[in-house]
Amino acid sequence: MPRLSTRVERLHGSPVRAMLEASLHPDVISFAGGLPAPETFAGIEIPPLPPALLQYGPTEGEPELRALIAAELAAIGLDCPAERVMVLSGSQQGIDLVAKLCIDAGSRVALESPAYLAALQVFRFFGAALHPMGAAGWGPGAAPDVAYVIPTFQNPTGRCWSLDERAALARACEDEDVVLFEDDPYRELAYEPSERRPIVSLMRGGSWVYQGSFSKVLSPGLRLGFLAASEDLFVPLSRLKQAADLHSSRLGQWAAMHYLKNPARPERLRQLTRRYRDRRDSFARALARHLGRFARWEVPPGGLFFWVRLNPGLDPRALLARSMQRKVLFTPGEHFQVDADAAGPAMRLNFSNASEAEAERGLAILGEILAEMACEAPEALPGRRSA
Amino acid sequence: MPRLSTRVERLHGSPVRAMLEASLHPDVISFAGGLPAPETFAGIEIPPLPPALLQYGPTEGEPELRALIAAELAAIGLDCPAERVMVLSGSQQGIDLVAKLCIDAGSRVALESPAYLAALQVFRFFGAALHPMGAAGWGPGAAPDVAYVIPTFQNPTGRCWSLDERAALARACEDEDVVLFEDDPYRELAYEPSERRPIVSLMRGGSWVYQGSFSKVLSPGLRLGFLAASEDLFVPLSRLKQAADLHSSRLGQWAAMHYLKNPARPERLRQLTRRYRDRRDSFARALARHLGRFARWEVPPGGLFFWVRLNPGLDPRALLARSMQRKVLFTPGEHFQVDADAAGPAMRLNFSNASEAEAERGLAILGEILAEMACEAPEALPGRRSA
Repeated sequence: MPRLSTRVERLHGSPVRAMLEASLHPDVISFAGGLPAPETFAGIEIPPLPPALLQYGPTEGEPELRALIAAELAAIGLDCPAERVMVLSGSQQGIDLVAKLCIDAGSRVALESPAYLAALQVFRFFGAALHPMGAAGWGPGAAPDVAYVIPTFQNPTGRCWSLDERAALARACEDEDVVLFEDDPYRELAYEPSERRPIVSLMRGGSWVYQGSFSKVLSPGLRLGFLAASEDLFVPLSRLKQAADLHSSRLGQWAAMHYLKNPARPERLRQLTRRYRDRRDSFARALARHLGRFARWEVPPGGLFFWVRLNPGLDPRALLARSMQRKVLFTPGEHFQVDADAAGPAMRLNFSNASEAEAERGLAILGEILAEMACEAPEALPGRRSA
Repeated sequence: MPRLSTRVERLHGSPVRAMLEASLHPDVISFAGGLPAPETFAGIEIPPLPPALLQYGPTEGEPELRALIAAELAAIGLDCPAERVMVLSGSQQGIDLVAKLCIDAGSRVALESPAYLAALQVFRFFGAALHPMGAAGWGPGAAPDVAYVIPTFQNPTGRCWSLDERAALARACEDEDVVLFEDDPYRELAYEPSERRPIVSLMRGGSWVYQGSFSKVLSPGLRLGFLAASEDLFVPLSRLKQAADLHSSRLGQWAAMHYLKNPARPERLRQLTRRYRDRRDSFARALARHLGRFARWEVPPGGLFFWVRLNPGLDPRALLARSMQRKVLFTPGEHFQVDADAAGPAMRLNFSNASEAEAERGLAILGEILAEMACEAPEALPGRRSA
């Protein structure tokens, strides 16, 4: 057997990716991924590519696209010159680059718990020691090397931080030389008035990386995201990008430029959020109908997910094993847990991809299976717990 | 200051990438990169994208594209099922994935010397100990963890391994549990009858990764490559791909599928190699005219580069400093050296990108500067060395 790197022992696949292939079958109802509704792709036009873009391009991205992104960032309060904006091959790549930049075996990473599973996957792979972080940050003397947060419509909880919470984390990172890594892929999917100010825009110094994505509002198939970073981190990040893939697809960058310059974009975004708000609301009603006896949740003010806490005694893995036989997929909560033992049984349900009718059918199936499971473990039903 | 990973101390940018921006100015003559001739992009057509491809896709790539690549591999003697073919975001990504898979600080990597600079960059970043490898492989008891080779029209030397050399390396890797990483981006750019059998196809077991690229024959701007791997390595590589960018751009994959299925492809490839052969030959004549007194080289049987050894005493960095002022770029040889002190002064000259007239003008300028430098250091002229 060949000798592989020690970090490969910490390499685990994503359960969501593993389910992706199954979820693409037309008769499967998937609440597992974070897939946009397919009907939102109608009308996306990509003009013919200028042949010059078939050549190698700059590592940091097309200058025009970087300038357009910088203007978007300025509009949300983040003043960052285009020279410190980098186009990414999806925001997953930003996680890889920041991990390479910051994480040795044993480096301390603070994150929300639960947290985005593909970030956990990468941080663990590079050997980070993961520390759950509350709104109060970390204790005295316990400053991490990196703090990773999705403060706006978090994946998986949908939670949105208050301005005070944002300011407190900005200050703590500044004061204790913690690299703040703010991941912001859902900010445009706001269904209620919500605080969305980037935390990094509240820092008056310090080291930070802010990243966004074109996957949720334009197309995930393009694999295109972007980051902005403080001056000290931008040059090494750019070298890491170079070593990772030289630069991102110019075809995708061309499509994104066209999208950002399209005067119909605000109206498209209004339609998209209206559609997803409706979908969220009907999903919430179906959840209450079918899972009300077995679980609790909050209706998320934005983003793509319901975080559903099951009653104690109901095992999401057992639920998934049965629901997969009936072609309904979701993601068990354990995959998002920083500390697997810390939290009760939970699951993440995506509401953007399935139609209203599919969601109704899928949630009814989950409700039926949960009812069976509750019969087998009666203590899981709230009315019985005190009995 | 924040604490960054220790590997960042070993992070260096690519000198070729640094020159890329300068090289895109229309009045600059660049022999520095490995850029295709821009006129080869004429006539490349990408049909409109099916909206379904705007959704997330499978990590390993589009099934149809993987099957097409597997058929290509079978045709060159490498029997590998489509299930062990993975689409990459450019073959640079393959280097990153293999490094993550195999390299800890201190892992031993054997490579040709000189070697592809962006591979050196990644291996060094992950902390590899690099060992130059001759055609005879490594000495007894000195087996590396990984052997990285470009056996067909190597970058930078243009060298093409004989069948005996290929078979010997295959056997050595098999016998000593060395992961063989064969990088094969230039194989279609053959200007003379040349042995091109993939080394990995000569292995009867063992662990291997073979990779190719669409950058040289179709378009580098798409950022698309592929790998095939032995069974033991494919699953971890696929997880690493997932953690790096989820999957490659489906837009680019769509373009590559169209390219591979195009009945005009063989004729296009014949035209491309004819064009590059002519360019190589006129480049060789201009080299002889302008640099004949100052350097030696071999005419490469394929690929994109001349590896030019300067007479002792002529410093490529000093040459580059002067030639850049006259808007002529190339890559000093030191960037390709595994052991910086091991070899004499050299430079890599790309012949595919500049037109015949530009190459003539650029090489004349290099010749003039070398003549000046030789006057300042007369021992560099062969006629004087024995004086």
